[in-house]
Amino acid sequence: MSDSRTELSNLGEFGLIDRISSHFSLKNRSSLKGIGDDAAVIDAGDDVILLSTDMLVEGIHFDLSYMPLQHLGYKAVTVNVSDIAAMNGKPEQVVVALGLSNRFSVEAIDALYDGIRAACANYGVDLVGGDTTASSSGLIISISVVGRTKKGSEVYRSGAKDKDIICVTGDLGGAYIGLQILEREKEVFLANPSMQPELEKHEYAVGRQLRPKARMDIIHELADLGIRPTSMIDVSDGLASELFHLSKNSRIGVHIFEDKIPIDQDAFNTAVEFKLDPFTCALNGGEDYELLFTIRQEDFEKLKNHADIHFIGYVHPDPKQNVLITKGGATVPLKAQGWKHF
Amino acid sequence: MSDSRTELSNLGEFGLIDRISSHFSLKNRSSLKGIGDDAAVIDAGDDVILLSTDMLVEGIHFDLSYMPLQHLGYKAVTVNVSDIAAMNGKPEQVVVALGLSNRFSVEAIDALYDGIRAACANYGVDLVGGDTTASSSGLIISISVVGRTKKGSEVYRSGAKDKDIICVTGDLGGAYIGLQILEREKEVFLANPSMQPELEKHEYAVGRQLRPKARMDIIHELADLGIRPTSMIDVSDGLASELFHLSKNSRIGVHIFEDKIPIDQDAFNTAVEFKLDPFTCALNGGEDYELLFTIRQEDFEKLKNHADIHFIGYVHPDPKQNVLITKGGATVPLKAQGWKHF
Repeated sequence: MSDSRTELSNLGEFGLIDRISSHFSLKNRSSLKGIGDDAAVIDAGDDVILLSTDMLVEGIHFDLSYMPLQHLGYKAVTVNVSDIAAMNGKPEQVVVALGLSNRFSVEAIDALYDGIRAACANYGVDLVGGDTTASSSGLIISISVVGRTKKGSEVYRSGAKDKDIICVTGDLGGAYIGLQILEREKEVFLANPSMQPELEKHEYAVGRQLRPKARMDIIHELADLGIRPTSMIDVSDGLASELFHLSKNSRIGVHIFEDKIPIDQDAFNTAVEFKLDPFTCALNGGEDYELLFTIRQEDFEKLKNHADIHFIGYVHPDPKQNVLITKGGATVPLKAQGWKHF
Repeated sequence: MSDSRTELSNLGEFGLIDRISSHFSLKNRSSLKGIGDDAAVIDAGDDVILLSTDMLVEGIHFDLSYMPLQHLGYKAVTVNVSDIAAMNGKPEQVVVALGLSNRFSVEAIDALYDGIRAACANYGVDLVGGDTTASSSGLIISISVVGRTKKGSEVYRSGAKDKDIICVTGDLGGAYIGLQILEREKEVFLANPSMQPELEKHEYAVGRQLRPKARMDIIHELADLGIRPTSMIDVSDGLASELFHLSKNSRIGVHIFEDKIPIDQDAFNTAVEFKLDPFTCALNGGEDYELLFTIRQEDFEKLKNHADIHFIGYVHPDPKQNVLITKGGATVPLKAQGWKHF
């Protein structure tokens, strides 16, 4: 180790991941896919086992002044399940590691596990283990999830091909806009504790932030229709960031039509009220946990009337051609902000 | 949720785990064993997949003023691998979730991953994924490990039978004694920063704390000898606490001979210097990551000359008879302190 000091902020999250993964290689035959997708893929006979982990840290990922513990438990499971969905798998088991300070009562932990249990029931997942420890500061929830699919059914970030159609589920930007509302109401409350929070009229966006859903419904529907996406990723960091992952891993370009990006009307209006560009929120907001995937042209007929799948663009053979076609018809380079925690 | 407040300290760690697990049941056919052993057991055709998770939190599990980051990375993998060993499995994959503040440089993270990589190489494990996030305070390392064994080869805490022989590997108490030395030297250093730490003469115990090893060597030797322990657990919280887990899960009692408990001579001398009872350290110290297991009487011949396996007692049919036979010949009830973080 040299004596020089390089700041984490110089590298960013993805730079750090690249740096780490460059030092590791796979040795076990059972390790079919390591770092670099939504989940690792492990051989299990006729099936593959999918493995992913996500850590939520108080003060970074959530603020307990507006995030009820029950919702937090639900969300912590959801973000993990979403990674399994993004591999075209079915989640089956989770383990939950919890760091707690003594400011949490047993009743508070019960509320957190009520949310975890509700999510487990909803997604058909078993809680099979965990670790509980003290934390000198905030609450930490680290969940790992095990999923499963038939060998060959798993979908990677790397399979998109020229002319494939780019699809996204649900609507985007809501979770980010909901966060802005919650942050504003918190400021108002801190300045004047007698004020009541105005959350009702922004219910949709606030719900997207506090109660996201993993899109297992879409995974089951695609299976029923006999469609295996050519590539897939979940939208956790923002649409633009995820599109760049598909571009990099599949070595293709993406052409996205701005006016095809789905935004909820209420969330749109709220964004405008906050003087935010709704399309920027949708492209860079993150935490929507929708699915972004590509399909072959011949599968389009089966999906074209689906109410909750939107066709936002197509795949281009040149990996350097990642562009946005604006509502005005201009073609501009796609840009990703992603998140910057460091 | 009621309005009353119950303190976590009223429940303790094991009480909290019992409370959580009472609210969860297993629904998926692939979930063969959930909460309550060193790892969960998941169906994988001819094999079973083992899954466990452990979280290490700065200020609770480690102090960076004397724990080099490289050792910390190694230890974080070791404690997870030890859980797979305790199920009689072979570790194959880990995912590493890291919470970091910006006081850590890229070089510091490199050192941490150097340790993780060394451990992965040593135990034959692949790093297949992870999550990297900011932390508003200390360093958090949450690792989940996937292991594997032939179906039917896994060993639970619940299989000990009357008259089985109770075995423990290596020696005990060293890690706890090492921690006392490190804490003392830290106090001395804080009081007088020009003092040099006196660690050389306590090298063994300090090494047990900073560089524990998971006993995969024993797992391979037992397999070579054709021995499948009837029950097994790793010694992470202290011998007495682990004996109570075997007693509770196997519904048997344990009779332990104090003079058979293995303690390293250097660690013994250091304990005496610190006015600590070496046997109390061995019984309640924790973090030794040795294996505690039971074998059938007929397997004793094959193991009796093993240099690193010690026979410390035997199984009794009455689960309420958990006793220690002291060096003086007195029979006293076994007591477990375990750890109390809350």
